[in-house]
Amino acid sequence: MYNTNSKKEYLEKKKIAKELENYYRKKRKELNLASFERCAKYLEEVTGKKSYLADRGIIFAQHDFEKVIAEIILGKSFAVVSGFNPSSPFHLGHKVLFDVLVYLQSLGGEIFIPITNEESYVDGKTESLEQGINLAHKLLIPQIFSLGLDKEKTKVFIESEYPQIYNFAFRISKLMTYEYAKMVFGNDSLVNVGQIFYRGAVQVAQILLPQLPKYGGPKITVIPVGIDQHPYILLARDVAKKLGMIPPAEIIFKFQPSLKNPSEKMSGSKPETAIYLTDEPAIIKKRISGGFTGAISSLDGHRKFGAVPEACSVFNLLRFHCKDNGFVDTVYKKYKKGQMTAEELKQITIDFISKLKIYGNQ
Amino acid sequence: MYNTNSKKEYLEKKKIAKELENYYRKKRKELNLASFERCAKYLEEVTGKKSYLADRGIIFAQHDFEKVIAEIILGKSFAVVSGFNPSSPFHLGHKVLFDVLVYLQSLGGEIFIPITNEESYVDGKTESLEQGINLAHKLLIPQIFSLGLDKEKTKVFIESEYPQIYNFAFRISKLMTYEYAKMVFGNDSLVNVGQIFYRGAVQVAQILLPQLPKYGGPKITVIPVGIDQHPYILLARDVAKKLGMIPPAEIIFKFQPSLKNPSEKMSGSKPETAIYLTDEPAIIKKRISGGFTGAISSLDGHRKFGAVPEACSVFNLLRFHCKDNGFVDTVYKKYKKGQMTAEELKQITIDFISKLKIYGNQ
Repeated sequence: MYNTNSKKEYLEKKKIAKELENYYRKKRKELNLASFERCAKYLEEVTGKKSYLADRGIIFAQHDFEKVIAEIILGKSFAVVSGFNPSSPFHLGHKVLFDVLVYLQSLGGEIFIPITNEESYVDGKTESLEQGINLAHKLLIPQIFSLGLDKEKTKVFIESEYPQIYNFAFRISKLMTYEYAKMVFGNDSLVNVGQIFYRGAVQVAQILLPQLPKYGGPKITVIPVGIDQHPYILLARDVAKKLGMIPPAEIIFKFQPSLKNPSEKMSGSKPETAIYLTDEPAIIKKRISGGFTGAISSLDGHRKFGAVPEACSVFNLLRFHCKDNGFVDTVYKKYKKGQMTAEELKQITIDFISKLKIYGNQ
Repeated sequence: MYNTNSKKEYLEKKKIAKELENYYRKKRKELNLASFERCAKYLEEVTGKKSYLADRGIIFAQHDFEKVIAEIILGKSFAVVSGFNPSSPFHLGHKVLFDVLVYLQSLGGEIFIPITNEESYVDGKTESLEQGINLAHKLLIPQIFSLGLDKEKTKVFIESEYPQIYNFAFRISKLMTYEYAKMVFGNDSLVNVGQIFYRGAVQVAQILLPQLPKYGGPKITVIPVGIDQHPYILLARDVAKKLGMIPPAEIIFKFQPSLKNPSEKMSGSKPETAIYLTDEPAIIKKRISGGFTGAISSLDGHRKFGAVPEACSVFNLLRFHCKDNGFVDTVYKKYKKGQMTAEELKQITIDFISKLKIYGNQ
């Protein structure tokens, strides 16, 4: 009896894993994006540097990244832009992005981080622009620099403290009709006129900012994004061409899975799915202990069929954050074979996550 | 025969005069605006100051201006906002507005003049924001101060050199849906996302700017406008209430008639209708000489029926700009009775306009 149930459970988890894999493969093909694999191998050959995020397929797609590699080979710097909304407290999903930024910085990238407090405000996520400024100073900026970015090569600015960006946004706004913005962003996120200006112009201004004369004029730029943000990069590429700037490249990383459901993404607005960078050890323990796993419920079934690490929110914490390939590989194999239980995996993961630099700093 | 034709011509010009009068009276009633007459009389009683613009019905309507009078009686200052688009070179129609501003300043008004170079840009009237800045510094700002405003009590700023206004505009933008903006401004002036943000938020931010804490918080404000701008004041009043600010008052002045057609307004984009503040004496002479008059073509007919000064673009130049009531009244009577010809009126008007301070300064 337990064998039938366990087999059913195993097959269900296999199905989740398969669907996740298909989701990213299909998206990549649908959007005509190249795989990142070849770029990563070439980069390793050229620079001797590699990233576990590329090795493990977490950075899985790219668009025009060959131009960034060409700059690296020529010893030139390139720009990287990554904006953050101050109303979303950073969680481990953001940490993946920071690891991507640290990797790009190690390759010569000059990092631009606009903190988009007007976005938080027009979207109703903060009460005022000032609340976003306070959150940025108290929380986000210290966290950004505790995650390994080099202060000298990173420009962080809060948008409403750098309103010159709006002059640039007005230039862009002339190229963007309401109809065009609606096509890219949909009606629902263009309700008030601030959202229309933010999405249709300011967001593009951020992406193209490093190409302003102030920062040295047109230059190769790369934007690390989640797959849902790809249309905004297309939009920025279109505007760049019209302004005589270089269309920005993108690299696309997979979502950190929700702790409750590996098919969904970790979300700052759903605390039960996330571990924030400000969480206390007791919370980390509680969240991981309650996480969805790829293991089989009955121990006998687990020993017989083994786990499905790909469909395991807990294992994915190690896969996304632990740089030690040997360690992750050993855990993967033992867990997959059913030699490691869900409880053992959780304990190992709690220990690892609790010791991450960001938590050690508290 | 000449009598029939002359009578026909006279009646046609009478009809133009009647239609113009009706236009303003109907508009005022339709929009439920009070006449300015009572306010002007009361102000004269209280302050001893009067304006020929009020006497002659050029300032013809108001909304909430009683609050401004109350401040004047209490010896408090109040704010006045009047924005200018740097792509439109000033003409005599603008001078009327400046005379209104000088009058309001003489009553204790603190004048705020935003120069809206981003408006010129998003509307495609300049090639760049910088072009608007240059026009403002070279042309507009010197002209503004040559028309009698006290520098100490006048704040002139170019919007893209004062981008803090956009932080305030974002606050307003949250209160303004696209649908609402469309209702007020219509589709045609909301094509690009910059126009949407400018009209729906920045323009209102200008009007409410004097009420920011930086300028002392909520205060009585009055906006001098043409009748076509009344809907924007209603919009600003609505936003003011939502922000805990004081809904701005307005005073409404009539348009300076086109030199070619007294039923249309003088327009900077149609040079044949206008006299610019930068025009040379030869141009002033040419434009006035070619102006539409209220006189009758045949001299005999003119002597018999007399002119219709209200339908005369040339006489209106005196009516709108000559402060000397005795002089304007004498011309009016002689012209109306047919004792003064169109040619004589034109010569008097050329002499008067050419000697205006702005031209004397060149």
